[in-house]
Amino acid sequence: MSPVIALTHDLIRRRSVTPEDAGCLPLIADRLARLGFRIEHLRFGDVDNLWATHGDRGPVLAFLGHTDVVPSGPEDRWTSPPFEPTQREGLLYGRGAADMKGSVAAMVVALERFVGAHPSHPGTVGLLLTSDEEGVALHGVREVVEHFTRRGERIDYCVVGEPSAKARLGDLIRVGRRGSLSGTLTVRGVQGHVAYPEKATNPIHVFAPALAALAAEPWDAGNADFPPTSFQVSNLNAGTGANNVIPGELVALINFRFSTASTAEDLQARTETILRAHGVDFAIDWHLSGHPFLAPPGGRLREVVSGVCRDLCGIDPEQSTGGGTSDGRFIAPMGAEVIELGPVNATIHKVDECVSLADLEALPALYEAICQRILT
Amino acid sequence: MSPVIALTHDLIRRRSVTPEDAGCLPLIADRLARLGFRIEHLRFGDVDNLWATHGDRGPVLAFLGHTDVVPSGPEDRWTSPPFEPTQREGLLYGRGAADMKGSVAAMVVALERFVGAHPSHPGTVGLLLTSDEEGVALHGVREVVEHFTRRGERIDYCVVGEPSAKARLGDLIRVGRRGSLSGTLTVRGVQGHVAYPEKATNPIHVFAPALAALAAEPWDAGNADFPPTSFQVSNLNAGTGANNVIPGELVALINFRFSTASTAEDLQARTETILRAHGVDFAIDWHLSGHPFLAPPGGRLREVVSGVCRDLCGIDPEQSTGGGTSDGRFIAPMGAEVIELGPVNATIHKVDECVSLADLEALPALYEAICQRILT
Repeated sequence: MSPVIALTHDLIRRRSVTPEDAGCLPLIADRLARLGFRIEHLRFGDVDNLWATHGDRGPVLAFLGHTDVVPSGPEDRWTSPPFEPTQREGLLYGRGAADMKGSVAAMVVALERFVGAHPSHPGTVGLLLTSDEEGVALHGVREVVEHFTRRGERIDYCVVGEPSAKARLGDLIRVGRRGSLSGTLTVRGVQGHVAYPEKATNPIHVFAPALAALAAEPWDAGNADFPPTSFQVSNLNAGTGANNVIPGELVALINFRFSTASTAEDLQARTETILRAHGVDFAIDWHLSGHPFLAPPGGRLREVVSGVCRDLCGIDPEQSTGGGTSDGRFIAPMGAEVIELGPVNATIHKVDECVSLADLEALPALYEAICQRILT
Repeated sequence: MSPVIALTHDLIRRRSVTPEDAGCLPLIADRLARLGFRIEHLRFGDVDNLWATHGDRGPVLAFLGHTDVVPSGPEDRWTSPPFEPTQREGLLYGRGAADMKGSVAAMVVALERFVGAHPSHPGTVGLLLTSDEEGVALHGVREVVEHFTRRGERIDYCVVGEPSAKARLGDLIRVGRRGSLSGTLTVRGVQGHVAYPEKATNPIHVFAPALAALAAEPWDAGNADFPPTSFQVSNLNAGTGANNVIPGELVALINFRFSTASTAEDLQARTETILRAHGVDFAIDWHLSGHPFLAPPGGRLREVVSGVCRDLCGIDPEQSTGGGTSDGRFIAPMGAEVIELGPVNATIHKVDECVSLADLEALPALYEAICQRILT
């Protein structure tokens, strides 16, 4: 069994459901320490994080990943047990195989090979791992970056191992992510009996035209790298259950996935302007999960990763900013160029999650080539 | 203690929370049987109903009431126990004092006096009582009327004892009621992740413009006797609770309180037309609680009851169709003219429900005068 397959097996066997690490990080730290990596265990709250570096100068190239996984769901729905790595027909099955213990194992193997071949390489290579990416993500990379910022530590280039590929390794890389802005909107009315509507103010009726306007608003047209900003109401609730009572309040959860063509402040202000223009009596509690970020076209890491895919996989990768957000949102504001490259994401978070053994075998060479092209 | 006060005490003492009658109907039946009334106990499902009549010709003047009451709520919040009739400062306190054991007692006393004074009166006087007015109202007057219809029995005039007065006895009579039409509307979308709105159809967004149109629609302008038809969404629910999921479905409960200027069929058709015009994929389950009804202006009972208020209370009563619906909705479709006259309704369904002792003392004379003017 090759080193990357063996390490992926070892990691899948550890039931590291968020925020449990189940020994994944110490296993990796021990391996890298043996090669001369400086090891920092950063524990914040109930979350273990690992920062392992080799080199003491700039530029800093960091690989970013997570050892935690989402729950397996009912284990009896899996063809083989989710925490027993099992190979069938060219695929390795297990929770975290694709998201993202396979990538983490490939990063470790790539770093071992690179440092073994270039013990005195220029710059610094690092591996940043958290056990809180799939959960609330408060004590993971978010807090690590705050810690780095306090001590003036920077990252110049960051490769995230999130499973990015559509059908085969190298067919798509993420060059950025949209921002995510949520709001809890409370519309205030006056409760009453449906037979006496003149004595009540129905918040559903007051909100309806404003909701229609919000849903129809062209927030922006996107740009060369991003699709247009999208607005969605995910939850809408009003009413006492009784059909003869006009409710006194309506609560809506709203979410923007926004491009670099808009700012969170602008979206908030425009939302509130639309609500006020429709005479809605409201309160809104905003929560910004992440600003949008983008590796600029022509940026060095973006060029290097694209080149590696072309040269080693024989594909000119699609350069996408689609999908949800990632821990890259915490690294990008440090001024780092962030690119995401990992295996096929078709089965992530599902029953019978799996990764292609061939893709997994090929991945360390991609990460190692990125190290060579950036740091030698 | 006068007969009407004494009987109201006896009725309040019986804990006749819907559908329990707790002996109210037998007590009344016994009193009326002694005066020669024909007694019919009509039990449907778990509900007792009483039909007591005197006379065997037309026209038929029926008094309509209910002996059931709504629950008291926490008894320790009452100043005096809800099922212990208590007199303080000119008021009689107890659950049902105003809604409507006081009216029922007044009807019984009025009928005793009228039949005592006119044992061979023309036509027929009757008292129809149910113990299921405050509940689901399936086995109460609704089913009694079906029973009457099957055997060809009719009612020409009906006086409902629902508490109609605003500030003092006789200041307002109900000359009709709006209809009530409810619908459970399900809007179908396609569930998905908020980061991929192009793969989902958000039923909240699709419904928003249709909802705005429904809320803004002038359904009718009302008429001389009715305010315009009102439309209310009482409940609106969509969403999984998670803020990253576009819901697959939205459910709204809607209610029309409608005048004789519209029909239920017309309102249903117009609602569905508006939904279809906005491209909404929906299903709707309609429930008609009651058609609107109206005692025509110049109708004999309407004139008689107004005249009785003027002559005995010294007030020209407001002739209203406001408020919710009543059991009169089941009687009116028989071709009967229906008028509602009862005590002040300010405390009904509340803690410390009460009725004015002076109003209660005066009420039998009003009902007796109606008998005299209609039947002699």
